[in-house]
Amino acid sequence: MDTPDDAQDRIGRRFTLLAVTTALAATAIAESVEAQAQTSAAPLASWNDGPAKQAILDFVRATTDPANKHFVAQEDRIATFDQDGTLWVEHPLYSQAMFARDRMNALASQHPEWKSQEPFQSVLANDVAAVTQFSERDWAEIVFATHAGMSQAAFLGIVTQWQTTAKHARFKRVYTELVYQPMIEVLAYLRANQFETYIVTGGGQDFVRAYSQRVYGIPTQKVIGSSIVTKYVSEGGKADLIRMPKLFFNDNYDGKAIGIDLFIGKRPYASIGNSTGDREMLEWTSAGDGARLKMLVYHDDAEREYAYGPAGGLPDTKIGTFTQALMDEAKSRAWTVISMKNDWKRIFSFE
Amino acid sequence: MDTPDDAQDRIGRRFTLLAVTTALAATAIAESVEAQAQTSAAPLASWNDGPAKQAILDFVRATTDPANKHFVAQEDRIATFDQDGTLWVEHPLYSQAMFARDRMNALASQHPEWKSQEPFQSVLANDVAAVTQFSERDWAEIVFATHAGMSQAAFLGIVTQWQTTAKHARFKRVYTELVYQPMIEVLAYLRANQFETYIVTGGGQDFVRAYSQRVYGIPTQKVIGSSIVTKYVSEGGKADLIRMPKLFFNDNYDGKAIGIDLFIGKRPYASIGNSTGDREMLEWTSAGDGARLKMLVYHDDAEREYAYGPAGGLPDTKIGTFTQALMDEAKSRAWTVISMKNDWKRIFSFE
Repeated sequence: MDTPDDAQDRIGRRFTLLAVTTALAATAIAESVEAQAQTSAAPLASWNDGPAKQAILDFVRATTDPANKHFVAQEDRIATFDQDGTLWVEHPLYSQAMFARDRMNALASQHPEWKSQEPFQSVLANDVAAVTQFSERDWAEIVFATHAGMSQAAFLGIVTQWQTTAKHARFKRVYTELVYQPMIEVLAYLRANQFETYIVTGGGQDFVRAYSQRVYGIPTQKVIGSSIVTKYVSEGGKADLIRMPKLFFNDNYDGKAIGIDLFIGKRPYASIGNSTGDREMLEWTSAGDGARLKMLVYHDDAEREYAYGPAGGLPDTKIGTFTQALMDEAKSRAWTVISMKNDWKRIFSFE
Repeated sequence: MDTPDDAQDRIGRRFTLLAVTTALAATAIAESVEAQAQTSAAPLASWNDGPAKQAILDFVRATTDPANKHFVAQEDRIATFDQDGTLWVEHPLYSQAMFARDRMNALASQHPEWKSQEPFQSVLANDVAAVTQFSERDWAEIVFATHAGMSQAAFLGIVTQWQTTAKHARFKRVYTELVYQPMIEVLAYLRANQFETYIVTGGGQDFVRAYSQRVYGIPTQKVIGSSIVTKYVSEGGKADLIRMPKLFFNDNYDGKAIGIDLFIGKRPYASIGNSTGDREMLEWTSAGDGARLKMLVYHDDAEREYAYGPAGGLPDTKIGTFTQALMDEAKSRAWTVISMKNDWKRIFSFE
């Protein structure tokens, strides 16, 4: 499997961070209380001090200290993360939409009708404004045309190949490099405290699984996403799974709470999202007892990344958006809003 | 949560076994090669020496020795187990069918029509012969009538309550005591060798999740089963998931291969089943490279448990049965058939 050097570097740094954390933890026994405090503060290095960072530290302290009334048994430590806009860049369009566009360009000669037929026409014309207004039905049509008709193994190969070559127009880097370093640190910090970290995405489950281990340290079995039907075929004893142009599960909005229950069967103690598509995931998390971490990433940094939603500036997608209503709800329910501008010391590992 | 003393004892013994295994592993460094060989043979104490036990030992040795050409990286060590007839008793009827019957008896006064309407009539009349011939559609009807219409939390409570009181007619014990001790040892042995153990059952996912951690040491997120649709409701900020009378996923036959890919996203290295319902799971496992353990539990012990399938004696269920064709396929594909009579020193922990 080809791996971009920079992504490899980032993984290397993450493993180094984990190794350092582990080593520090081991020697801390012989160190002073001050040294231990230093160690426990180290994991979120790309975060500025402030209420968001503090909320994460307080949550981990409460749920992992056996003497705390909010202590959570290790087998129940579940944390769920949205992907697009929460773990990596989603503007001007989802990475998966870019993948679909490139797949459509590759397949266009076999489909002359796409040039005059929506939603394909807008995608091929690179009409970003039109694409942001696509409905779920439009997206389904595009997914069926570009993500189906091959085996699971073949699809994995296509996505992997694309991820190593396609680049983001503004940042000129492959998409898997555009993950948020502060969030990589939250994933590592929670895992170092025996939380299982899951991705719960409205995006394609198999698309994300192609790189989740390499990029996020999250294995395929902890990626929950939208999926299409697969068909089991066996010819001459050779078994295969074929991707069909039919929706199986829509893991967005209420689908996120349903998907969490379906795949995990436990209510998360921590959930982080960034849009109305994550609202029910946070609500489902909130409905449990004890200490629960509920956070929304707020894109208010046009200089280093993008500003959209109530922060204005850019057109947001029609599905999964940070509305003023969501901001109001976050305030009324005491969900923590992470300001990318104020809370994040750096956004990308390459900064 | 109420826990029967005997089940508690069994869990205690399992934990003791694990603790002993761990302690032995730690001291083995200072021990002789002979002592190590002794330690590695200890885990399958309820198995007689023979090809089945040897197949498990050989598989684990090959996949966990870094010098072996069939070594498997830790993150890819996936093992999948059927439940009914593989991990616990399924005769004369699945435990979940007994649960459904008891639920129907409890609800019968609200449904006078059941007395003269199939498939309900046969269940209420305790007509085992008729029930074994039920189709998947019949079972769906019964599940919709007995497993839906309440919240997930309420259903969990109902199943848990039932499991602590309902007893098997022949063995006079709660169903969760009727797990096969040799298989509990296989689960523990594989986990001690860093395999993730999953249940992949045609039975109800949420039914099994109610006791999987306690009985098998398998957490809810590693139980894949058949499921019905759940609906997310939120009233006054109080979120809940309601079970609906509609099939979501049928995790049997080809559904087992599809379910494994959907939930895990990796091909298992080991799969153990006992019926045609597990055929595609074993075939999907076989289709991978390297060392793969494929086994079928064969019920040929009428004295200590039951004899059915090609071993004859008892009527088998219509769906998920050990046919002569499956036995022939197992032989032609070199899938290991576990003879309960010959391979298992004891069947239950209480023997």
